[in-house]
Amino acid sequence: MRDVLAEAAFQLFLERGFEQTTVDDIVARAGVGRRSFFRYFPSKEDAVFPDHERCLADMTEFLAAAADADDPVAKVCDAARLVLRMYAADPEFSVQRYRLTREVPGLRTYELSVVRRYERTLAGYLHDRCGGDPDGALRADVIAAAVVAAHNNALRSWLRSGGRGDAEAAVDHALGLVLDVWGVSAASGGDPGGGPAVRPAGAGPDAGDDVVVLVTRRGTPIWRVVQQVEAALGSR
Amino acid sequence: MRDVLAEAAFQLFLERGFEQTTVDDIVARAGVGRRSFFRYFPSKEDAVFPDHERCLADMTEFLAAAADADDPVAKVCDAARLVLRMYAADPEFSVQRYRLTREVPGLRTYELSVVRRYERTLAGYLHDRCGGDPDGALRADVIAAAVVAAHNNALRSWLRSGGRGDAEAAVDHALGLVLDVWGVSAASGGDPGGGPAVRPAGAGPDAGDDVVVLVTRRGTPIWRVVQQVEAALGSR
Repeated sequence: MRDVLAEAAFQLFLERGFEQTTVDDIVARAGVGRRSFFRYFPSKEDAVFPDHERCLADMTEFLAAAADADDPVAKVCDAARLVLRMYAADPEFSVQRYRLTREVPGLRTYELSVVRRYERTLAGYLHDRCGGDPDGALRADVIAAAVVAAHNNALRSWLRSGGRGDAEAAVDHALGLVLDVWGVSAASGGDPGGGPAVRPAGAGPDAGDDVVVLVTRRGTPIWRVVQQVEAALGSR
Repeated sequence: MRDVLAEAAFQLFLERGFEQTTVDDIVARAGVGRRSFFRYFPSKEDAVFPDHERCLADMTEFLAAAADADDPVAKVCDAARLVLRMYAADPEFSVQRYRLTREVPGLRTYELSVVRRYERTLAGYLHDRCGGDPDGALRADVIAAAVVAAHNNALRSWLRSGGRGDAEAAVDHALGLVLDVWGVSAASGGDPGGGPAVRPAGAGPDAGDDVVVLVTRRGTPIWRVVQQVEAALGSR
């Protein structure tokens, strides 16, 4: 029943526009009574995002089941991947919904609220894991925001492209940027997601051809140094 | 007129509640016609946040005036401080509004939209500064989200405390966490991912006064290299 209502609603939103579709239109299309709609969806907006409540519940459950030994930042990255997987499970629907959401301010606002709830879920877990760190709440908020921003950057690029390409790989790459900086292996000098952009010569076995060494006097004008760096890096 | 309307609206929201106050109530209190209200505020929600449009414009102008030599991450931190200063200029109003916003879902949603606009403004500037970095948009989104999260963590702690304590110091501390990781000085020594990438020639504390050695991978984005060179050569 819930799925039938959500599908009827979405088809009508695409056909007539979100604002032009009433709840009466939706229940008529689905062949049910008006009260049925509100039993499943508090509002018309909720019918556009029928799967976020479930995903939020899955995320909460996933984080509650995390072990103390897990890297908390890697864990929230994995939790964010649950959202990607929900979108990637039905690319056509996700892309159509993305386009609809771009056009309707009320849906964009609704989406912001949902994103905020994911972010608060991730931050809550991180805060719990920060123990007695006096900056625990701050750190949790910043890392959760960074994870959500990285995830959404990749997700939205994929949606804008019409659902082409490997969404999971794009999200992995984006989350790697956050893990590089905030993850456990970042703190211990490891190399979890592509490595630091800049490192001393000879740091890795494959460093040879890839490394540029620039020596300059401290008083050198910055434009001159930039010229040299560009000359060295740009000639690929 | 705009200020008179905003003040009348806010007093009524505190006295009667946001939902219970109509635009007619507000214009009656302010002693003006109904059309005057909508000339200044598109909605009742806008009257609760009369200063954000101005602050967004100030932020845009501030970033547009930034020099190429500025550390982009430090610059967006400074831009975020404009928001803090707006709140700190009138602590009593800011604290009352914060409490009102916690109670009214529609105001929370409105606030999310405003925060998102600040974040997009910061990300837009960072993206422009990233040049040809293929991860420029990703990096810009992540850093902007981290800056906004750090700023808002400190701002909200201050608001929750009833406006007690030094809000500017709290925001400085919070933004310091982001600067440590993403700012120029992070690249020159605080980088948790791979150790110092730029260092004076020689190991001793005095040996590097004149010469800087920069070692970088050929694939390093030019803006990142310039950041590091600037940190090593300049601004001390």
